[in-house]
Amino acid sequence: MADQAQESLPERPKEGVEGEKKGPSKSELKKMQKEKEKAEKAAKRAAEEAERKKQEEANDTSKEDYGQLPLVRQSSGVKHEKLADLAEKYETKLSADEKGLEVVFRATVENARKQSAKLSFLVFSQQSNTIQAVVAESEKLSRQMVKFAGQIPTESEVVVHGVLNKPREPVQSTTIQNLEVHVTKIYVLCQAQSQLPLQVADAEGRIPAEGEENAVREDGKPIVSLNTRLNNRTIDLKANLNHAIFRIKAGVQKLFTEFLDQRDFIQINTPRLLGAPSEGGSSVFEVKYFDSKAYLAQSPQLYKQMMISSRYEKVMEIGPVFRAENSNTARHLTEFTGLDFEMAFDEDYHEVVSLAEELMLYIFNGLRTRYKKETDHVRTVYQVEEFKLPEAGKVPRLHFSEGIKMLRDAGVEIDDFEDLSTPQEKKLGALVLEKYGTDFYVLDKYPLAIRPFYTMPSVETQQKYDPANPNAGYSNSYDFFMRGQEIMSGAQRIHDATYLEKRMKEHVTPVDPKSDGLKDYVDCFRYGCPPHAGGGIGLERIVMLWLGLPNVRLASLFPRDPGRLMP
Amino acid sequence: MADQAQESLPERPKEGVEGEKKGPSKSELKKMQKEKEKAEKAAKRAAEEAERKKQEEANDTSKEDYGQLPLVRQSSGVKHEKLADLAEKYETKLSADEKGLEVVFRATVENARKQSAKLSFLVFSQQSNTIQAVVAESEKLSRQMVKFAGQIPTESEVVVHGVLNKPREPVQSTTIQNLEVHVTKIYVLCQAQSQLPLQVADAEGRIPAEGEENAVREDGKPIVSLNTRLNNRTIDLKANLNHAIFRIKAGVQKLFTEFLDQRDFIQINTPRLLGAPSEGGSSVFEVKYFDSKAYLAQSPQLYKQMMISSRYEKVMEIGPVFRAENSNTARHLTEFTGLDFEMAFDEDYHEVVSLAEELMLYIFNGLRTRYKKETDHVRTVYQVEEFKLPEAGKVPRLHFSEGIKMLRDAGVEIDDFEDLSTPQEKKLGALVLEKYGTDFYVLDKYPLAIRPFYTMPSVETQQKYDPANPNAGYSNSYDFFMRGQEIMSGAQRIHDATYLEKRMKEHVTPVDPKSDGLKDYVDCFRYGCPPHAGGGIGLERIVMLWLGLPNVRLASLFPRDPGRLMP
Repeated sequence: MADQAQESLPERPKEGVEGEKKGPSKSELKKMQKEKEKAEKAAKRAAEEAERKKQEEANDTSKEDYGQLPLVRQSSGVKHEKLADLAEKYETKLSADEKGLEVVFRATVENARKQSAKLSFLVFSQQSNTIQAVVAESEKLSRQMVKFAGQIPTESEVVVHGVLNKPREPVQSTTIQNLEVHVTKIYVLCQAQSQLPLQVADAEGRIPAEGEENAVREDGKPIVSLNTRLNNRTIDLKANLNHAIFRIKAGVQKLFTEFLDQRDFIQINTPRLLGAPSEGGSSVFEVKYFDSKAYLAQSPQLYKQMMISSRYEKVMEIGPVFRAENSNTARHLTEFTGLDFEMAFDEDYHEVVSLAEELMLYIFNGLRTRYKKETDHVRTVYQVEEFKLPEAGKVPRLHFSEGIKMLRDAGVEIDDFEDLSTPQEKKLGALVLEKYGTDFYVLDKYPLAIRPFYTMPSVETQQKYDPANPNAGYSNSYDFFMRGQEIMSGAQRIHDATYLEKRMKEHVTPVDPKSDGLKDYVDCFRYGCPPHAGGGIGLERIVMLWLGLPNVRLASLFPRDPGRLMP
Repeated sequence: MADQAQESLPERPKEGVEGEKKGPSKSELKKMQKEKEKAEKAAKRAAEEAERKKQEEANDTSKEDYGQLPLVRQSSGVKHEKLADLAEKYETKLSADEKGLEVVFRATVENARKQSAKLSFLVFSQQSNTIQAVVAESEKLSRQMVKFAGQIPTESEVVVHGVLNKPREPVQSTTIQNLEVHVTKIYVLCQAQSQLPLQVADAEGRIPAEGEENAVREDGKPIVSLNTRLNNRTIDLKANLNHAIFRIKAGVQKLFTEFLDQRDFIQINTPRLLGAPSEGGSSVFEVKYFDSKAYLAQSPQLYKQMMISSRYEKVMEIGPVFRAENSNTARHLTEFTGLDFEMAFDEDYHEVVSLAEELMLYIFNGLRTRYKKETDHVRTVYQVEEFKLPEAGKVPRLHFSEGIKMLRDAGVEIDDFEDLSTPQEKKLGALVLEKYGTDFYVLDKYPLAIRPFYTMPSVETQQKYDPANPNAGYSNSYDFFMRGQEIMSGAQRIHDATYLEKRMKEHVTPVDPKSDGLKDYVDCFRYGCPPHAGGGIGLERIVMLWLGLPNVRLASLFPRDPGRLMP
């Protein structure tokens, strides 16, 4: 099964392009004779080399024990082990003099090094688990195999047969320190090319800070730019750093679903292709839909409300949402994952706010316990403060006016009903952290004028209604913040068709209740609908802010922005 | 808080359009006098009526106990009950003579009927739970309130205060039969319009069979067409039939995630916006992307493989996928939900096939136990045979050639390497059911020529490779079938870049390995990748075939097809 290196064919002599030629001159003949001798010598050398190789192969006692495996195999019935299992079972138990354990496993070559003609060292990995391996010449193991093993390119996928032993001294450079593998067979399943455009080891580090181009890390490795990483994302994603980030991202989704599932929310799947741009036309992508047009959903907002009107009471959805915003910031993506929920309530929309607060605490606590290893790992790379959580049931819930007051007391100039800018949000986050000792809080009762048309005005706003100034006052809406940045926006929604139509017309940006994209939505409230509220969470933002990542793209496997659609 | 019925304003007399007029004639004067008297009488009657109403309202002992609630309230601290909880706690326990229990709950009015001036009957519902209610005149409860309650339009959302009693006889028409509510207060939260374009009760029935227009059900209710339902989908979705279907759909997703989660698959989120149409250009939607173009993902196929190359070993994804196929059949949607998984394997792709079989059995068994009530309900409407499952570990896995042989033995004319048509698939499903007694089976080793370029040819196909006929032979690919219809397609994928490039070029529909949409994909295999296989399941198809629904649109909340983008 040894690798059959394909001999390169001798180059075919070029045919003359000229016509009939004269006979050769003396000097030409001499030259030809010399070349002939040269060629004969070369042929002899090649034949000898081939013979030597043939002999070597014939003498290779290990020739069946290494090489390239065919692409397709059939099950041999051999049990493959996981390094994590081996570590757990044997790392502390195998004593130094105990006879080794025979194992078979599939792994990635993280490093291969030929120490001498008789000895190669390799490091094998399975995600974050790594183990050292020794390929040593012996009666049963040929020098050819030692050479082969020591030259396997990094990142190649291999099958290893070996004997597990306790190393003389604990291995410092691998995660499994008290076990090493004495390789008996090694086959390549997929050989990586020897020069990679990005080293996985380099991808383990952080991205450069602003203005920090061409810098190096403390350990001398280059600090790889975000662009280089994203251009070579499949290599970048191999890094343990990214495995940790994306395990956490999967974790947030799992915790979100778990919490809501326990409370009887049902998972829904609403369309991404819409017949009309329903939530304002400026930041919506247009799709060619046969002979017509469609638009990509900016959120499942209207659909999850329609589900409430259809008596589903509590719904949740995880899915991609699309924003055609030409913003090239560290916080914006054109496609991200929305975690959405909506629920009917009995009396007061704060029933929903309280549940959403609990939901977020459940996610944070789940990340802190179940994803501690991953969180800690990322924080060794991107060093941020521990995420400070409030005590259970003590999430600060500030009235918008209180937020404005805190900002003003801190010297910020801002109007009563003005939306917060990003720096103002961050400032308020810092003030809340100082006052309440938490990185997570809720800002409640946003001004009506700065929220979407479907937002329910507050009691006071409805009571003080002034036709001359229909958008004055506060609304039953809220934003949730992590480290001073918004992660969720939500509100009580208007569940009365007549009132909704009125608000649509008198909104700061009026919309037409009879338009194609809104008619069915408005109509659903004519068929009966309970009062309801909900929210939409940006999944990538939670991951970014939990870990203190400097760019939201780091929390997206294959990020999309106005300038990037690849890979 | 009693309903303030808005008095209609007297119509404003029309102003004459003609110019100056002559004085009135005698007969005209007489007529005017008559009209004046008539108007005075009417005004008197109106005043008396108003006075009577005012008196009635003043005398209305219940006026605070019914009417319209304001849109926004604050929590009163009153505990709201759930009908399901009440049924469970009290239905069998409350004895006939026991003093009733005071309760408050929010519900939908399923029916309201004024029996007499002194008595109204209502049926309240919370999803599939329904309870009968009595509003009876008493010292504390006015006739006005009885009238109000009896006239609340169906589908309105209300808050009910009442006393729970055991009815004299079990109520036949509600799900809760041994409890009824004696209403003490009733407030409308959202009043439905009195004429709905579709009755929820009608939506509880099946859609017409082909050619069965304008038919009626056994109980005399109309058989509502699919189009009418979809045009009024928010009403249609209120039906218990749909609640059952969409609980099952959520259930399939939950079971899928649960099974794979237990086996350490990680949830990924891959992009829907692609820079190039990567899986063949004909059935892909084009998106206007700023000044450029993007394309909607037809599946996460290439991305989930890239994740495997990035060492994630086992990945799963649930998300919308898009097909620009102009097919108006009962089986096609332009947007549906893909359940995708992909995993590295050690030796043989059948490791993955076995896991996928287990996965499907886990889903089927989960539906059979955890969603029995919902399944049974839908099957009372769409009457199909029970879904027959194989014994654990005994899923029939037929070689493609065996399938062809079974069809031929049954008289079907078909070539060895021809793809099955839909009728042939159904026929084979019937033959398998007959032979193996199961509605679920796997057809393995599809011909190479009819599978996508990334499909791994089988061992024999690789060994017998003929450059003159590079697409001959079988491949390591498989389809899963339910009731003779395909629900999942999968395969071992090529994990070697060089071989993949070769297959791309020699495929029946060749693609360019260096094209924008494929370059990063092909490259990822140069950086090392384990052998892997996976599959993609159409969620709506599983739901449709589990329940024997006659149209896949019934398994989509807001279905999308070439002719439908609304609601």
